[in-house]
Amino acid sequence: MADLLDTLTLDELRTRTSVKWQAYPADVLPLWVAEMDVPIEPAVIDAVGDAMRRGDTGYPGGHAYADAFADFAAQRWGWTFTADDVTQAPDVITAMRALVERLSGPHDPVVVPSPVYPPFATVVERAGRRLVTTGLTPEGRLDLDDLAQTMAGLDASRAVVLLCNPHNPTGVAHTRDELARVAALAADHHATVVADEIHAPLVLPGATHVPYLTVDPRGYALISASKAWNLAGFKAALAVAGPESDDALAPDRFELGSGTSHMATIAHTAALRHGTGWLDELLAALDGRRTLVAELLAEHLPAVRHHPHQATYLAWLDCRPLGLDDPAATFRDRGRVAVLDGASFGPGGEGFVRLNTATRRDVLTEAVRRMAGAIG
Amino acid sequence: MADLLDTLTLDELRTRTSVKWQAYPADVLPLWVAEMDVPIEPAVIDAVGDAMRRGDTGYPGGHAYADAFADFAAQRWGWTFTADDVTQAPDVITAMRALVERLSGPHDPVVVPSPVYPPFATVVERAGRRLVTTGLTPEGRLDLDDLAQTMAGLDASRAVVLLCNPHNPTGVAHTRDELARVAALAADHHATVVADEIHAPLVLPGATHVPYLTVDPRGYALISASKAWNLAGFKAALAVAGPESDDALAPDRFELGSGTSHMATIAHTAALRHGTGWLDELLAALDGRRTLVAELLAEHLPAVRHHPHQATYLAWLDCRPLGLDDPAATFRDRGRVAVLDGASFGPGGEGFVRLNTATRRDVLTEAVRRMAGAIG
Repeated sequence: MADLLDTLTLDELRTRTSVKWQAYPADVLPLWVAEMDVPIEPAVIDAVGDAMRRGDTGYPGGHAYADAFADFAAQRWGWTFTADDVTQAPDVITAMRALVERLSGPHDPVVVPSPVYPPFATVVERAGRRLVTTGLTPEGRLDLDDLAQTMAGLDASRAVVLLCNPHNPTGVAHTRDELARVAALAADHHATVVADEIHAPLVLPGATHVPYLTVDPRGYALISASKAWNLAGFKAALAVAGPESDDALAPDRFELGSGTSHMATIAHTAALRHGTGWLDELLAALDGRRTLVAELLAEHLPAVRHHPHQATYLAWLDCRPLGLDDPAATFRDRGRVAVLDGASFGPGGEGFVRLNTATRRDVLTEAVRRMAGAIG
Repeated sequence: MADLLDTLTLDELRTRTSVKWQAYPADVLPLWVAEMDVPIEPAVIDAVGDAMRRGDTGYPGGHAYADAFADFAAQRWGWTFTADDVTQAPDVITAMRALVERLSGPHDPVVVPSPVYPPFATVVERAGRRLVTTGLTPEGRLDLDDLAQTMAGLDASRAVVLLCNPHNPTGVAHTRDELARVAALAADHHATVVADEIHAPLVLPGATHVPYLTVDPRGYALISASKAWNLAGFKAALAVAGPESDDALAPDRFELGSGTSHMATIAHTAALRHGTGWLDELLAALDGRRTLVAELLAEHLPAVRHHPHQATYLAWLDCRPLGLDDPAATFRDRGRVAVLDGASFGPGGEGFVRLNTATRRDVLTEAVRRMAGAIG
């Protein structure tokens, strides 16, 4: 039976004008940027259509989005917060930059486990802070010993740790024990943790999402419905202040809130209120793609090292055994498959590629075959 | 005959969840924030609905929005630029802050003719620059002599002038001569002009929009379809670099571009490509409201001084002759009419209120009657 990721044909997908489908020639299979090849949850389509007909296209008002996410978080993860704890923001990265600026001073250190989603480093640079990277284990998990050493070496009265929970690109879902260790290290070293939890609804069967603020009430979490419901084009996010935090974004609440797209909050609210069935269907399909990509790699690219992702729809492939200078370029130029170059995710990403599995089964199959052919 | 602003009933408008319709109790007529009580251009509704059905909700790609605006600007104003000159951005204010940061250093002066749209001052503060205000004439026009004095007093090797063209809140459309004088002063004093032209399509009969870059090729213009087509909830903007500028946003192009809502660019592109007939209808209706509000003020609030706006849909009312401490509060609390307090627009705005005329004739009529009753 066709699952959510098998619904749309390649011809239909190619009518999309978003960057995934426009950046490369038509003979390239685009498995790079984090867009999914799914149809949109019908309740989201209806909510946006209804708002358009009412001309509800003005500035954001109220806190329907925060309320909807709080209900979703309580039901899904047992994590409780209220709209009073929340600053609405244009997107996760904008909120992250505002938090970094409030939680540290010029040239203060910002610790980033690397490799990680590239905008983390950009945020630190744009804020005029000092980027301090720490490593991951060979399994793509937080290297807590390295983090402890890194934190002990900080020579500042204030620091920030940017956590990606679950972690993009390695797809690990941090455990409660791991997060508790991060929280303890932060407390010991005058640091505040900001956890980007945009992938939280995409934790797959076999793992559990632990909301960071359930472990560390001094921290901050950044959440959004955009990733799980494939609404990157409708950007909006929420910054949740931990109950024992200083609510550092309070002075920015009006500015960040009024800079948010009202229509995006309408779309996200509909997804959270009416889209949990759709989400569960999606997770089943993504679980299937995870199995499929592991089988395909074992068959066609057995030299590539790969720890199946616990969350997200991104496979993080260690291509170093292939001995290629630039594996992403080889796959693109010789295999006509676009993946992301691991080096762009920062130190530790060299020799890896990130493959987006949220696509049709036949596309994923053909892509891995072509990647194998490219190195032949 | 019902015009565009008379189409929707008050009950229909009250179903909107945007801030204009949610911030006050139902017995308050909300003529404050810049949202219009119009139905949305049908081509925009269709474009968004079509994109939703195709799931075209990913990251922004291509330059369709810049192309559409360039065609619109060439046809409407004879102003030519190409997508190569353009940085796509989440909204005008985000682009303005990025430009201020690129065009000046910490504590450098940023000159702002005041009173003006309040986020201008916020941008300067957030960027860590020095806000230097200059005045307007009693007619709400740029006070060029004051500007000359202000510029001569700057003690910096770099400065920025933030222009609002047309000017919000006074609704003046700057003339070519005025803009040429601004450009000359900027050149003489090592300053770069950034012109916010978000209201440009809303210049009303009797005046003409002069695109700033047609006067000063060293400057920058910020444009968007969001204001004229009532798409504040679909934020997106374009920063156009003058042909003799340094294209200061080039290093930010990727970051600002990928931070833009793809769906907003789809909506704006449809407005620009298919919405000029709707825009002309809107302008006729806004012209009618401008006449109506002048008549209503003359009849019910003759002491209030008022220079009819040449652009925008905002009436800027000098209430100082009424001798009220806080006229906006009086109109709201005693008249149940919400308008914006002029003082929030910066020095020179004290004693004024900004009234949003983009509403039904009966609402506007009732509002001015209530305002008159509030001071009786």
